[in-house]
Amino acid sequence: MISSQEAMNLILDQLPIINKEKINTLQSVGRILKEPIYAERDQPPFDRVTMDGIAISYEALKRGVNQFSIENTQFAGDAQIALKDKNFCIEIMTGAILPKNTDCIIPIEWIKTNNGIAVLDTNYQPQKLQYIHRQGSDHQKYTEVLGIGHKIEPMDISLILSCGKKYIEVSSDPKICIISNGNELIAAGEPILPHQIRMSNGPAIMVMLEQQGFKNCEYIHLVDDKNIQQEHIKKHLICSDILILSGGVSMGKADFIPQVLQECGVKNIFHKIRQRPGKPMWFGIGPKKQLIFALPGNPVSTITCCRHYIVPVLQRACGRDFFIDEYVKLQQQIKFQPDLTYFLPVRLVNSENGEIKAYPVETNTSGDFASLIGTDGYIELVSKSNLFEESESIKFFRWKMP
Amino acid sequence: MISSQEAMNLILDQLPIINKEKINTLQSVGRILKEPIYAERDQPPFDRVTMDGIAISYEALKRGVNQFSIENTQFAGDAQIALKDKNFCIEIMTGAILPKNTDCIIPIEWIKTNNGIAVLDTNYQPQKLQYIHRQGSDHQKYTEVLGIGHKIEPMDISLILSCGKKYIEVSSDPKICIISNGNELIAAGEPILPHQIRMSNGPAIMVMLEQQGFKNCEYIHLVDDKNIQQEHIKKHLICSDILILSGGVSMGKADFIPQVLQECGVKNIFHKIRQRPGKPMWFGIGPKKQLIFALPGNPVSTITCCRHYIVPVLQRACGRDFFIDEYVKLQQQIKFQPDLTYFLPVRLVNSENGEIKAYPVETNTSGDFASLIGTDGYIELVSKSNLFEESESIKFFRWKMP
Repeated sequence: MISSQEAMNLILDQLPIINKEKINTLQSVGRILKEPIYAERDQPPFDRVTMDGIAISYEALKRGVNQFSIENTQFAGDAQIALKDKNFCIEIMTGAILPKNTDCIIPIEWIKTNNGIAVLDTNYQPQKLQYIHRQGSDHQKYTEVLGIGHKIEPMDISLILSCGKKYIEVSSDPKICIISNGNELIAAGEPILPHQIRMSNGPAIMVMLEQQGFKNCEYIHLVDDKNIQQEHIKKHLICSDILILSGGVSMGKADFIPQVLQECGVKNIFHKIRQRPGKPMWFGIGPKKQLIFALPGNPVSTITCCRHYIVPVLQRACGRDFFIDEYVKLQQQIKFQPDLTYFLPVRLVNSENGEIKAYPVETNTSGDFASLIGTDGYIELVSKSNLFEESESIKFFRWKMP
Repeated sequence: MISSQEAMNLILDQLPIINKEKINTLQSVGRILKEPIYAERDQPPFDRVTMDGIAISYEALKRGVNQFSIENTQFAGDAQIALKDKNFCIEIMTGAILPKNTDCIIPIEWIKTNNGIAVLDTNYQPQKLQYIHRQGSDHQKYTEVLGIGHKIEPMDISLILSCGKKYIEVSSDPKICIISNGNELIAAGEPILPHQIRMSNGPAIMVMLEQQGFKNCEYIHLVDDKNIQQEHIKKHLICSDILILSGGVSMGKADFIPQVLQECGVKNIFHKIRQRPGKPMWFGIGPKKQLIFALPGNPVSTITCCRHYIVPVLQRACGRDFFIDEYVKLQQQIKFQPDLTYFLPVRLVNSENGEIKAYPVETNTSGDFASLIGTDGYIELVSKSNLFEESESIKFFRWKMP
């Protein structure tokens, strides 16, 4: 059986390149940038005033002038005017372009204005060029401000729009089909018998992917019937970019999924990983090189495998080039014997000394997903050790991938 | 001038209670729960088998029986059958209900089946009740599994559906109107003159709120004209639950917003906060007790004030009852004189020892939002000190509120 790291490498060997498309910048949060964003103009595009007050010539101030007749007013959004007489001033607003022949802004708090004459407070010592955000001082025209592979956050929208880009090239949203399997599963809202179970894995995968920016998901449920499974999987192999199945991959007599997938032309890359939970995970490549993930049906396994393998792999396929590694301090000694990687759910406490403490929450079984509520993610206990000490630093994976 | 903490308290004094609505569970990620979620049944709802293999009577094993004729098969999703002869076994699948008269599961890996007889591996020592996830062992029927005030994450969807809830009561999505102001602002995609600036604040507020689950946002832009501003603000005071304005709140001659708001019947609660950036922030209460935030127009101020005040306040108004406090270790000594709270952007490094290091990124001015790219949030340097030492622990606010 392969290790968790080997499994990840085998998936990454098959990584497809997801197409790009041009979309409205406002719709792009969560997508991966597929073109570099260059500054449209210098930033600021002109010497930009950062205070309400008056604009003067610093040279006049040095000559001892401390009261200035208001010659004109420069509003934000108006074309640049000029100070004609250096002993005069121009009334000025935050965001306005600096008037010609001026090089110092006196904030309104430090002047008294009477009959169109602004008188400086005698205690105030202005500096040349103060309250002027100089043209190009943040960055110059054509500077690359965001690169290909960047995952777009709300903050970036400001910057992209300020570069004049109403539309940008980002990774396409791949068509993902999620298929749950199992006769025992009954949807919420339907009557249920004692031996049946509520359908929850498929929807959980769907909302987890949606939260990560993958909105083009379809979810269907199939009963344990080889013919029905084959029919639907064949159809979705034609119209989907990614298939994610849940359930039907263990060794039971109704676990037809590996066989059905292979009969549909999916090439198996691996089946089973030396890990807990999620040991029976199956992975293959479809006829059009689609990634086909078949996850075990226990809820804790499904959620963990989806977070650990599928979410980062899809983001890589979209071209994301930077992932955040997190580490936490274990708060309790953990021993375990089996030679496998143990993904152990933890609850975090951000202590005031800047350390992140991780409190393990052992699930009853991999079906016990109620225990996951209140956990923030899981730590990866790698199989090379079977003893992890209290206060040891361990790699941590947040349920909501940052 | 009031402090940042006083400002927050004054806003919270006016906190409205946002209505609730019943929506499809699948659409509820990011919303705040308004009803407790109770377990529909015991979890698991029956003694649930967790391995493929055979179900036997442990007592037979104790009597020395180590090969069992297969009497019947119990599939997941089928009604419970019974073992008739205790010397026989029932072939069993993961997820199935435990057959009557059995109390031990032998995994398929430890048996060899020939002519309908399952023979145990002689090295294998089974335990009574092994691989049986006992009815009610995770939680019992009617247990409260999620409480009012919980912010719904993808993981919770599994649990809510497993409680049979197709629809749940959550906080309504308040109608938020975002209004940017300023003659100098030109939308991306439109021709621009040298003294003009790209419109970016309004869209940035909108996408930040959308990311936090507030999808019912409208964005408009107004020029600096009191009559136009009054007309639109009056209209939106009728149809919106929350108003967020950007720009026009400083002391400039075209900064009409505070006056216009008061003329529209908005009662001012405070204007200006002892903070950097965002000092000119204005807050008031509309005729229908709406929260009215008017933020300064510099991009760094707008984004910081939106994250620091508006996002948490809206979530509280929706009933969210738990917020995560984060702390980081400052990596560089910071001195500053003014008596104010300084929100300083930082870039985080999650070091392998489990500590979070924060590297300050000082913006050129509060217009320099390109510097924010690559920062993870900001630290709050409170005004009671003017020296913050290297490696001091400081409260941290993530741009994307967790």
